[in-house]
Amino acid sequence: MLLLGEDVLILSHQHPDGDTLGSAFGLCFALQKCGKRARIECSDPIADRYDYLTDHYTEESFVPQMIVAVDIADTQLFGEKLWPYRDQVDLCIDHHPSNTHYARRVLLEADSAATAEVIYEVIKAMGVEFDPVMASAVYTGIATDTGCFRYTNVTARTHRIAADLYEKGAMAGMINRVMFETKSLSRIRMEQLVLSTMEYHFDNRCALIVVTLDAIEQTGITDSELDGISAIPRQIEGVQAGITLREKEGGYKISLRTSDNISATAVCSALGGGGHARAAGCFIAGNLEEAKGAILEALRPELEGK
Amino acid sequence: MLLLGEDVLILSHQHPDGDTLGSAFGLCFALQKCGKRARIECSDPIADRYDYLTDHYTEESFVPQMIVAVDIADTQLFGEKLWPYRDQVDLCIDHHPSNTHYARRVLLEADSAATAEVIYEVIKAMGVEFDPVMASAVYTGIATDTGCFRYTNVTARTHRIAADLYEKGAMAGMINRVMFETKSLSRIRMEQLVLSTMEYHFDNRCALIVVTLDAIEQTGITDSELDGISAIPRQIEGVQAGITLREKEGGYKISLRTSDNISATAVCSALGGGGHARAAGCFIAGNLEEAKGAILEALRPELEGK
Repeated sequence: MLLLGEDVLILSHQHPDGDTLGSAFGLCFALQKCGKRARIECSDPIADRYDYLTDHYTEESFVPQMIVAVDIADTQLFGEKLWPYRDQVDLCIDHHPSNTHYARRVLLEADSAATAEVIYEVIKAMGVEFDPVMASAVYTGIATDTGCFRYTNVTARTHRIAADLYEKGAMAGMINRVMFETKSLSRIRMEQLVLSTMEYHFDNRCALIVVTLDAIEQTGITDSELDGISAIPRQIEGVQAGITLREKEGGYKISLRTSDNISATAVCSALGGGGHARAAGCFIAGNLEEAKGAILEALRPELEGK
Repeated sequence: MLLLGEDVLILSHQHPDGDTLGSAFGLCFALQKCGKRARIECSDPIADRYDYLTDHYTEESFVPQMIVAVDIADTQLFGEKLWPYRDQVDLCIDHHPSNTHYARRVLLEADSAATAEVIYEVIKAMGVEFDPVMASAVYTGIATDTGCFRYTNVTARTHRIAADLYEKGAMAGMINRVMFETKSLSRIRMEQLVLSTMEYHFDNRCALIVVTLDAIEQTGITDSELDGISAIPRQIEGVQAGITLREKEGGYKISLRTSDNISATAVCSALGGGGHARAAGCFIAGNLEEAKGAILEALRPELEGK
C-alpha cells in the first residue's frame, strides 16, 4: 500500500465518536495484520460501549515514522493531548468537505457517508483480508455516521460495503443494539424532564423544549447526549421547526431544527448565530420568556408565510 | 414469470405495516408495468404516511383470476373485509416461519428479513425493470421490517438489495424520515406520561413503566404506537428486564422485554402467559401494587441469580 509506511501513529478526534474510532481501529488492526506496528491516540477516553474494539487492541510502543489522522477535519478537533501533533500529520483520511487540509497529504472522499467507508477502500487496497473484528470496526463507523442507514448521506455504496462487512463477520447485531437501542439513565431522565416542558406554537407546526442548568446538573447528561435531545421536538409529526432552549449563564443557547421548507440558518443568523440549512443555533441573552419570545418572533414569518 | 397469472388480486394483512404494503405495492406496480391488471385489497385503511405509494396507485376493476397474499402468515390476519378470500388464495408470498400454509402454493423464505426481500426476487424473476416508485415500495418493506437495518434479521443480502434499490431511485431519505424520524403527538405525550412512572428495581437492572387507561384515553395512542412504548424500559443502559404494565379491566397486561441472559417466556409462563424468548406477556388480575409485586417476584430469581 503506497500511502502507509511503517510504525504508524493513528489519531482520532476529541470526544471520539463511532466513525473516528471505527476508522482508527479498522486501520490499526489492518496494519498490524500485515506486520506493521500501529498505535491509536486520542485526547479523550474511549467509552465502554466500544469494548468490542478496545478488547482486541494491544498498545504498541514505538517512535512513529508516520502519523495518520482519521475523521479529523480540523486541528481544532485534536484536543489537548494530540495538540503537539497538529503540524506533523503525514496523511489525513476524511469525508468532511470542510477539511482544512492541515495534513501533508489528504485522502478526502466527501461523498462517503463516513470516513470508515474510505478506510474500507484503504484496507481493500492494502490487500488485507477482513476479519470479524476489522469488519466490526469499519461497520461501527458507517452505522454510527449514518444513524444506522437512516440519513441522507447513505448511498448504494454504503449498503454494498455493509453487505460485505456482514459477510466478513461484522458483529452488526450487537453493535446496532449497543449504539441505537441503548439509552443512558441520564438521557432517559433528561427526556422525562424536557418532555414536561414541551410547548406547541403556530398550530403545532413549532415545538419547543427547555433544558435548564438544573436539569443538566440533576441528570449528569453529556453534551453528545444533549445533541440527541435537541432532535426530539422536530421529530414530532407535523412539526416544521423544533426549538431547544438550553439555559446558559445570562441567557439561552438556541438549537433550531427545521424541515425542508424553512431555513434554520436564516432564522438563527438574524439573531446573530448560524449553522446549517436544517440545523442552526444562536445565543439569546435574557430570561426564559425573553429568549422564547425572540426565537418565536424570528420564526413567525417563516411559519406564518408557509 | 411462471407463478403469476393475469388479473391479480393482491391481499395485505389487517392493520397493515410497511412490509405487507411495500410488498403489495411493489408487486402490483410490477404486474401493471408488464401489462397485467392488478389490484390491492386490505381490511383496514392505509395510513397517510404511505401516500408516496398510494398516490401512484390506480384501482383497477376486474374479476380476479389469481389471488396472492403477501406477508400474511395466517388467515387470522385477513381481517373482516378479506375473510371471504381465506380459502381462495392461490399463492402466498411470505417470510414468517409460522406461515400456516393456507394458500394453494406458498413462496416462503424464512431467512429473508422481510417479505419485500422475496418480492424483490420475484420482480427480478418477472424481468421487470425497477422504477423509483417500485424501488420505494420494496425499500419500505425492507426498512420497516428491519428497524432500518438495526435488527438481527438483517443479512448481507438485505444490504445488497438495499444498494440496488438506491440505484433504482428508491426515495430512501424521505421514507426513512417518515418511518423512523417521526413521532405522533399521541406518542410523544404518552412518552412523557410513562417516563414519569419509571421505576428501577434490582440495582437498576429492571425498569418498569405504567400505562394507565386514563393515559391511553388522554393521548389517543394506537396499539402499534404502544408497542414502541413497551420497548422503552429495556432500552435503558444496564437494564436486563424492561416491564410495561398496561391497565386493563380488572388487572394489568404485562409486557416483558429482556436481554440475552433472561428468559421472558419462562417468567411470563409462570404467570400464565407466554411469548418469545426476549419478549413475552401475561395478564395479572388485581390492582397496580399487586400486579407490580407479582411480576417483580417472578423476575427475582432471574435477576438475583445472575
